[in-house]
Amino acid sequence: MKLYDMRVAPNPRRVRIFLAEKGIEIPTVEINIRAGENLQPGFLAVNPRGVLPALELDDGTVIDESTAICRYFEALQPEPPLLGTTPLEIALVECWNRRIEFDAGQAVIDAFRNSYPPYADRAVPGRSGMPAIPALVERGRVRLAEFFPVIEQRLRESEFVAGPKFSLADITLLCITDFARALKMTVPEDDVPNFLRWHATVSARPSATA
Amino acid sequence: MKLYDMRVAPNPRRVRIFLAEKGIEIPTVEINIRAGENLQPGFLAVNPRGVLPALELDDGTVIDESTAICRYFEALQPEPPLLGTTPLEIALVECWNRRIEFDAGQAVIDAFRNSYPPYADRAVPGRSGMPAIPALVERGRVRLAEFFPVIEQRLRESEFVAGPKFSLADITLLCITDFARALKMTVPEDDVPNFLRWHATVSARPSATA
Repeated sequence: MKLYDMRVAPNPRRVRIFLAEKGIEIPTVEINIRAGENLQPGFLAVNPRGVLPALELDDGTVIDESTAICRYFEALQPEPPLLGTTPLEIALVECWNRRIEFDAGQAVIDAFRNSYPPYADRAVPGRSGMPAIPALVERGRVRLAEFFPVIEQRLRESEFVAGPKFSLADITLLCITDFARALKMTVPEDDVPNFLRWHATVSARPSATA
Repeated sequence: MKLYDMRVAPNPRRVRIFLAEKGIEIPTVEINIRAGENLQPGFLAVNPRGVLPALELDDGTVIDESTAICRYFEALQPEPPLLGTTPLEIALVECWNRRIEFDAGQAVIDAFRNSYPPYADRAVPGRSGMPAIPALVERGRVRLAEFFPVIEQRLRESEFVAGPKFSLADITLLCITDFARALKMTVPEDDVPNFLRWHATVSARPSATA
């Protein structure tokens, strides 16, 4: 099997960190989305949807959603569990992961893809060539600002995002907030002591460099 | 436990169908999003995020993402499995469910919430009061039109969306396409014989009326 990857993009990083936490190594192929390599015939022959990350299995099956790739490896190698083991843990990991994807991740991606010149004609990830909508930049910024007090409150009550154990929800939050910072979006440094404590802890894990 | 529900909304319907397939009955409380009941103090005290569906457990824990509610019940009562059992099935259910949510679901919701007058000041679901962005209506329509050839091709090769077994991915596709039809968005009736065959099959399951 082989993982189609892009070093600087947040979703491929989620998968790389997940695999590093499991101690799983697989070959990767770097695809440069910014340069449009994901929309060239070579990659579209592998994944007609044109999105990354994409895991190609030996029989040619392609899994092109980050969380689906993570679930595949969690089922193949359950230890250490990153998606919960009890019904409540499983539900809370999924719930927080989705909340972060929607309330923060979509906000960051909207603000980024609708303002970054190379994506002027492909504001929606993947093959669909949608023109940028500038109003989404402000919507994304406002939604991201609203998200931080929520996650600060959660991390005041909980060591990790979904509870006392590190999970995919932490990986998602780390990748999105680091990506937002890299883009110079506002990630607060005041009034969020628990977010900063959490960020230092998860960034110190060896997997964070994956 | 108790499920906060809204009869005509697509995400609560996903959970109701999932529970019906499992033969699980729980009390529901109807909340009218259109009338803004989800943003009134009574519901915000239960779920500060203001979104539906929301499952309230007996200890007060609230799970407010459809797929998290589904995963909770799949873990509590694995039969019949609706999220896959082998690693590959698990990955394919998640992958197709996410593809449908993103490529079709987000398209329909964008087109709906940014054009429906009662949502003019709350185009993003939940507490955040974001103004509508009219350009998202056209983006949503174009993306939805691009989605149907993809799902038609898939259903030409596969009895159900994720493979030979009915799964959450079928529930998601049913709820989104029925919602799009109810809104008079274009759901093709020509050139999609496999989609229509699939739609008739899943609509005939007793759970479809849940």
